[in-house]
Amino acid sequence: MTILTLLTDFGTQDGFVGVMKGVIWQICPSAKIVDLSHEIQPQNLIQGAITLSRVAPYFGEGTVHVAVVDPGVGTRRRAIAAQLGNQFYVAPDNGLLTLLIQDAESEHLPIKFVNLDNSDYWLRDITSTFHGRDIFAPVGAHLAAGVPLSKLGSPINDPILLDFPKAIRTEKGWEAEITLIDHFGNLRSNLPAKQIEGEIEIYILGEKIKGISASYGHHPKGDLVAVADSGGYLEIAVVNGSAEKKLDAKIGDLIKVVING
Amino acid sequence: MTILTLLTDFGTQDGFVGVMKGVIWQICPSAKIVDLSHEIQPQNLIQGAITLSRVAPYFGEGTVHVAVVDPGVGTRRRAIAAQLGNQFYVAPDNGLLTLLIQDAESEHLPIKFVNLDNSDYWLRDITSTFHGRDIFAPVGAHLAAGVPLSKLGSPINDPILLDFPKAIRTEKGWEAEITLIDHFGNLRSNLPAKQIEGEIEIYILGEKIKGISASYGHHPKGDLVAVADSGGYLEIAVVNGSAEKKLDAKIGDLIKVVING
Amino acid sequence: MTILTLLTDFGTQDGFVGVMKGVIWQICPSAKIVDLSHEIQPQNLIQGAITLSRVAPYFGEGTVHVAVVDPGVGTRRRAIAAQLGNQFYVAPDNGLLTLLIQDAESEHLPIKFVNLDNSDYWLRDITSTFHGRDIFAPVGAHLAAGVPLSKLGSPINDPILLDFPKAIRTEKGWEAEITLIDHFGNLRSNLPAKQIEGEIEIYILGEKIKGISASYGHHPKGDLVAVADSGGYLEIAVVNGSAEKKLDAKIGDLIKVVING
Repeated sequence: MTILTLLTDFGTQDGFVGVMKGVIWQICPSAKIVDLSHEIQPQNLIQGAITLSRVAPYFGEGTVHVAVVDPGVGTRRRAIAAQLGNQFYVAPDNGLLTLLIQDAESEHLPIKFVNLDNSDYWLRDITSTFHGRDIFAPVGAHLAAGVPLSKLGSPINDPILLDFPKAIRTEKGWEAEITLIDHFGNLRSNLPAKQIEGEIEIYILGEKIKGISASYGHHPKGDLVAVADSGGYLEIAVVNGSAEKKLDAKIGDLIKVVING
Repeated sequence: MTILTLLTDFGTQDGFVGVMKGVIWQICPSAKIVDLSHEIQPQNLIQGAITLSRVAPYFGEGTVHVAVVDPGVGTRRRAIAAQLGNQFYVAPDNGLLTLLIQDAESEHLPIKFVNLDNSDYWLRDITSTFHGRDIFAPVGAHLAAGVPLSKLGSPINDPILLDFPKAIRTEKGWEAEITLIDHFGNLRSNLPAKQIEGEIEIYILGEKIKGISASYGHHPKGDLVAVADSGGYLEIAVVNGSAEKKLDAKIGDLIKVVING
Repeated sequence: MTILTLLTDFGTQDGFVGVMKGVIWQICPSAKIVDLSHEIQPQNLIQGAITLSRVAPYFGEGTVHVAVVDPGVGTRRRAIAAQLGNQFYVAPDNGLLTLLIQDAESEHLPIKFVNLDNSDYWLRDITSTFHGRDIFAPVGAHLAAGVPLSKLGSPINDPILLDFPKAIRTEKGWEAEITLIDHFGNLRSNLPAKQIEGEIEIYILGEKIKGISASYGHHPKGDLVAVADSGGYLEIAVVNGSAEKKLDAKIGDLIKVVING
């Protein structure tokens, strides 16, 4: 009973995800399918990559993750499958796995890639607009059913990697940026909270925040606070409110951390 | 382990779908329940019918599809169950199955209908506002548990069929219309792409598109293109954008195809 | 194969719910997980409590419900697990279970509570921002896997209860209020429809409605009607439309019922 996860930018209105599940269960009826998110913004590889990298580690050995954010569908971009540590990934070769690959490298986990060029594991008819259904779903299902990675295509070692902005150490502290805005309007950054030591002030969009709080609930409703988010990164939030709305914040906005001694 | 799909206009906020799943599992604990869409626009039978007809074929033999878009709930409209080919359907008798019935007829598949008039397979208490819970979910669950169609009610052969607009052959080409706008803002039409031959120009809302492209990614971002969608129909799209927004398009808007020689 | 339900205000964009499912399946791989709603408005305990109390009764014996609407995450608020009748609940101790507890009391069902103070059943690392992942998901999974309630923490009998507005009997009839607005824009109230007898008039936001209708479909499209909703409460609706939009209605708005003889 293998777990197969789905992450896409398909939305949940049109039945695209239902189609993928139908395809998967016809190949691997025992697969336990779980939706990670289908609300990645259309074609937003960065959001898809960050979201997948934050969720996948909570799944166990042998899980197959099928991720489809695919602006290049139907062009010559490759489709790939990967083993990273003890989990499997199927995705277009467009950088969607970048962070997971970097994490696996830094933890010295086993890493393998194949170019999905063996059409035996695809649907028979391939459209140029819905490889989620035609290629990624069936390949994921075959992996879940026990087909070894090596049968799905030719080995490669040059998957496309995206350039993710890193927080920068400055003379006075750090310059980070907003990399993700969540459902609550919390602003997640690229600065690991454990990098921050001593007394600090945080500057964002004309506002100043003193120090990192233990949690949201330690301040009155409406206060702007900084916390360590559930992934360990610096997050700017409004208690029982939306920092996104309060600050009119956007992905990429600057967060300055000033360390006072 | 029968698969039971759900398609409704219930949304996912209020727990209506959760209630249906609770009811289903109390009758058929082994059913594998999958959501096709719960974001059909309220009471939009056309959108429900098109969506269901595009998704159902990707499921296997014996699948039970429960579809509830039901403006007439609590009135004298019938509730029906159907066998179309090797799959089963449970729905209000309001045309929601029209396209699937027409497809089954054109493929000469086995077709059977019953009027759900046997209350042995309903919940004990029937409200006049939530037959999804009281009738459709339990009937679907009993089907999934192996109860034969014939036990669920009296045979009928006059299910209500809706009139779907068809693309019209003109002297110069085709007049089609937008029948569905998907999550990406792609405009799906009622013209099978394989009907289009030769050099063509497409006119929609004051814009002209030359020819049908192999896929979105063969044009620069922002370009308006025509492609064959994943169901084989002519689709108007904007590369990495929304044709709905760019053209301010609506369901029913005209798409003219002019064939040049 | 225990059923485990999830109700949160997490939304479905960020993968928070996927993380919880990953955690649950690593502890109890056989759990059948079902989403009740992840669209409770952020921090809206009242909406969460009403929604959960309307859905849970449709699930069977032994079901584990994990509910996380948790404005106090990371503060000293307790986390609790409860047995109410033959089902189990895991939630922050903030009143989210109020209505279910009151229902169980009025039906004289078995009731037990524990304070979740046994960290053996939590994840090893506890953040102060995501107890859904760190505490509620693993505790729910252990319950689903058969760990007895009593092992999860110390018995308590003073869970926090919220004050829900009750419909008031007046000289002329009833004063109720809107307690929930559903996906269709139907206005659900706190007045049990069976309390209403005789000829009545309903006043809401300057509009008058005569009597309670059998269902939506007995009136022309666009009509404002009163019905008994699927939970047995008075509901104000617009036929094939949204009463919320037509009346610009909000939670807490007054509904007056005048009984004529």
